[in-house]
Order: sequence, then C-alpha cells, then structure tokens
Amino acid sequence: MLSKAQSKYIRSLEMQKFRQEHRTYLAEGDKIAREWLASSARIQMIVALAPWAAQHQDLIRKHPEAELVLAEEEQLKQVSGLQTPNQVILVVALPEPEKDTLPASWALALDAIRDPGNMGTLLRIADWFGIDTVTCSPDCTDVFAPKVVQSAMGAHLRVRVLEQDLPSFIRDSKLPAVAATLEGTNVYGFRAPAKGILVIGNESRGVSEAVKAACTQQVSIPRTGGAESLNAAVSAGILCALLLPRP
Amino acid sequence: MLSKAQSKYIRSLEMQKFRQEHRTYLAEGDKIAREWLASSARIQMIVALAPWAAQHQDLIRKHPEAELVLAEEEQLKQVSGLQTPNQVILVVALPEPEKDTLPASWALALDAIRDPGNMGTLLRIADWFGIDTVTCSPDCTDVFAPKVVQSAMGAHLRVRVLEQDLPSFIRDSKLPAVAATLEGTNVYGFRAPAKGILVIGNESRGVSEAVKAACTQQVSIPRTGGAESLNAAVSAGILCALLLPRP
Repeated sequence: MLSKAQSKYIRSLEMQKFRQEHRTYLAEGDKIAREWLASSARIQMIVALAPWAAQHQDLIRKHPEAELVLAEEEQLKQVSGLQTPNQVILVVALPEPEKDTLPASWALALDAIRDPGNMGTLLRIADWFGIDTVTCSPDCTDVFAPKVVQSAMGAHLRVRVLEQDLPSFIRDSKLPAVAATLEGTNVYGFRAPAKGILVIGNESRGVSEAVKAACTQQVSIPRTGGAESLNAAVSAGILCALLLPRP
Repeated sequence: MLSKAQSKYIRSLEMQKFRQEHRTYLAEGDKIAREWLASSARIQMIVALAPWAAQHQDLIRKHPEAELVLAEEEQLKQVSGLQTPNQVILVVALPEPEKDTLPASWALALDAIRDPGNMGTLLRIADWFGIDTVTCSPDCTDVFAPKVVQSAMGAHLRVRVLEQDLPSFIRDSKLPAVAATLEGTNVYGFRAPAKGILVIGNESRGVSEAVKAACTQQVSIPRTGGAESLNAAVSAGILCALLLPRP
C-alpha cells in the first residue's frame, strides 16, 4: 500500500527543487516503465497496480535495489502526472553528472529551450539520429521534468545530457558549431563538416548573440510559404537529416 | 464590460461541439490577434483590455462587423485558455467549407493526428513550406481547437484545411501519394515527384492500412540511434525538406 508519506514524496518530484534535493525523478506509464526496468537505470521505487506487478515480475526482479509498492487505481491517480494514469510509476535515481564533455560524434547544443514538450522531442531526435551528447544551457527547462521524460520516449537512457555554458562548451570542444538561425547560409548548399555541434535556440528569441558569437557558421532552412518560423524541434530534425552523415 | 452570457459563450468555444454549433472559434493573445485582425478573417467579437484596444484602434477599425468588448484583467482570466492571459481574445467565424479539393502544389494528408500540439505544428510546417492544402481524415483532432490555433502560429490564415476520407482524396487527386512509414524506401535515395501528397500517420499507430493501400509509395527516414520512432510533426518537417522542390 502506498503510504501518505510516499505519495507526498512522489508528488514532490514534479518540481525540480525536490528532484535536485532527492537526486531522483519520475518515469511513468507502462511502456516507459518497461523500458526503464530493462535498462541499467537505478530504480528507487516501483509504484504499480497489482496486476501490472504480477505480469512484470521478471523485470521487477532485475531491480532488487527498488522498493516495490502496490497501489490502488485511486492512489495512482492521486500521484500521477498523466491525465489517464497508466498502471505504474517509477522513482529513478538521477544519473551521475558526466565528466567527459567531449562528444564522440555530432552533438546537439540547446540554448534556452523552455518548453518541456520541445525538450523531450529534441532528445528523441538526438536519440533517433545517434547523437550521443546533448548539451543544455543552464537556462533550459529541466530535462528530468515528467513531461520531458514522457515526450523523449526513452532518450534519457541512451543520450547523455550535459548542462554547461554553451560558449565554453563550443570553444572547449574545438569542433565546428553550426547555429540554426533565420539569416544563415541556405542549408541545401551547405557543406557540413564530418563532425560538429548543431546549435538550436530558444522558441521565441532563437540563438542568443553570445552563443552565435561562439559558433563558426549559421545555417537556415529556406522558406517558401508564409510562416514566420518553424518550431525549434522541427528545425532540429530537418537540420539533423540534412547535416549529419547519412547511414 | 464582458457580460456573463458573453463569458459563457466564449468559454463554450473551447469545445468542438459549440464551435460547430456557432460556426466560430477562438484566436487568443496579442500576436495572434494582430495577425488575425490584419487578415481578411471575419471577426465576430474582440474582447480586449482597454489599453490594448486603445493601442490597436487602426486594426480594430478594419473590422466594423466585430463587436468590441472591453474586459478587466480578471474577466479575461476567466475566459482565457492560456496559463497567462494575453490582453485579447477574438471570436472568429469558421471559414466556409472549401469546395475545390484539388491541391495546386504538394499537399499534406494527415491520418488520425490526435494531439492538438502536433496538429498545430503540422499546419505551421505546411505554412513554412508553402503547402497550400492540408487534408485531415475525419478522426483527426479539430484544427480549430484553441491549442491548435496557438501552436499553428497563423497557418490557419494561409493554409486551407480540408476534412475528407483520405483514400478518396488521394484517388480523386490522381497525384502520387507518399506515406511516411517505418518500412518504406530510404528517403535519401528516393526520387520525389514534382507534385504529390505527403501522408503522415497517427502518433502511435502510424499510417493506417487502408490509407497505405491508397498510397503509391512509402518512404522512411533512416535511423542511426536507438529511438523507436520520430514525432509525427518532426517526421513531416524532415520529409518536406527532403521531398518538396527546393526554393
């Protein structure tokens, strides 16, 4: 049974302050829980409906470090961040901060991405294109917020995420850095380097001047229609498809 | 002053049922309101804070058909769908149903897109790439829902949206139709027709079998990393950038 204290603890993890304090985050729903339990993530608590727990004993047994708490549907509803709670919520230990900050392949650098849905979609794009490093400026939304975890669809398990001042990250990497802007070189005519950093800017202001100054190039996706701009994650997807080495 | 009846009417337009009944929808916030008032959209009501109305008299005067209602901040908050209400809400007449369903250039066909944020982003992509026609299957989310209008960033004013059974739309158009699937031809090696229909499927199930059967080709974006799939709008953006004629 889920105690009041446990329930309060889980709900607190919707806030970054408490995720930082407890060094844990939430991963919710059947599909995500199965993916997390199959991975090497350190699980602190598994809160599940009894039928779900019975059906996934093998996965649960892989995590002797985790406390298993059976919950009633009503209790799960009270702690869930989803509109329709989905059988299981995990409390997961935040990964240890990464020390080696040099990307092995193309990296993605995110400058002040504020919307959790966009952030999750950007991590999912990195995961699809085999980008191993995503570096977030300190004013990005927290990548361990429940909405980011939901929309990243497992990217947290495969893509390492750093938080760092972007101009320093770019300079230290000694890699060419390509900023997505509205006034750059036409991306269709652009000869991409074999390895580099793709820089995506804030949803309304774009890439900041300080970060632009640290970049070696700027590229744009040419527009045919009337829209003022593209969504940040959509731009990132298009630029990954056009700039990264093709499989 | 905003009356109780007006306030109730505006709130009712958050639901598709009442948008259909009254043949109107909501367009909210400073930027969107300015864009809508500068267009030829038929505006039924302008609900604004007094300073906003004073500052935008020229735009308001362009719409003698519209009833101008000044509201207090507190009143605007009560009818707003935004977390932070933004000075103005418009009630807009739904556009007349389109008769001519043949696209003049590449068209986008959406098969059961359910998420309003995705729908808005897809319309914004169509608007960016100069796609003049977006055809939605009848089980798509309503394109005039407030969240769709917010995330489409003005696309409603420039892209015509049809609702039609997709297999009939594809067959009647006599255009090549390219479905985005996980098992299609590698898009990098694909020779795109000069004009066609790009078909994007549901967020979790992809393009339905019935729609696939009506398509002439299937393409896929090759994956390098571990993600199971890409977000529907991101896939659409990438495929538009790779398939459509380049400006």
